Amino acid sequence: MKAHVYVMPKASVLDPQGQTIHNALRKIGFANVAAVRQGKYFVLSLADGIASSTARAEVERIARDVLTNPVIEEFTYRLEE
Amino acid sequence: MKAHVYVMPKASVLDPQGQTIHNALRKIGFANVAAVRQGKYFVLSLADGIASSTARAEVERIARDVLTNPVIEEFTYRLEE
Repeated sequence: MKAHVYVMPKASVLDPQGQTIHNALRKIGFANVAAVRQGKYFVLSLADGIASSTARAEVERIARDVLTNPVIEEFTYRLEE
Repeated sequence: MKAHVYVMPKASVLDPQGQTIHNALRKIGFANVAAVRQGKYFVLSLADGIASSTARAEVERIARDVLTNPVIEEFTYRLEE
């Protein structure tokens, strides 16, 4: 089983990396892009045979306690068989 | 419309950030995690009323030419209405 974890700066937090990419895209002519946000993406390979409920609980703890800075970031995740 | 772009180091490329996170997780007791890969996650907000086919073509160009280093990374993306 794999877990995909997506970490993003909260909407209220400035995102200078995303802003820089947005500026670059406008300069090279991509006028259809109104905003860019940059976050992190993690793929966790989980042990074979792990129960879905266990996986869900562990991934949530890992995402909340290790992968995300709760002051400025928020996460979502999905499990893949 | 929003585009979600996921950039990952290719499977053949070492991922020291993912490795470091994996080691940290094992040390603090998450034994069910067999591997970790770290990549980047971008959310592009696209102009209102853009056609789906135009969005697809632009996002692919942006992902391939700007967001991804094709020597060591690969990308996937999805569009969201």
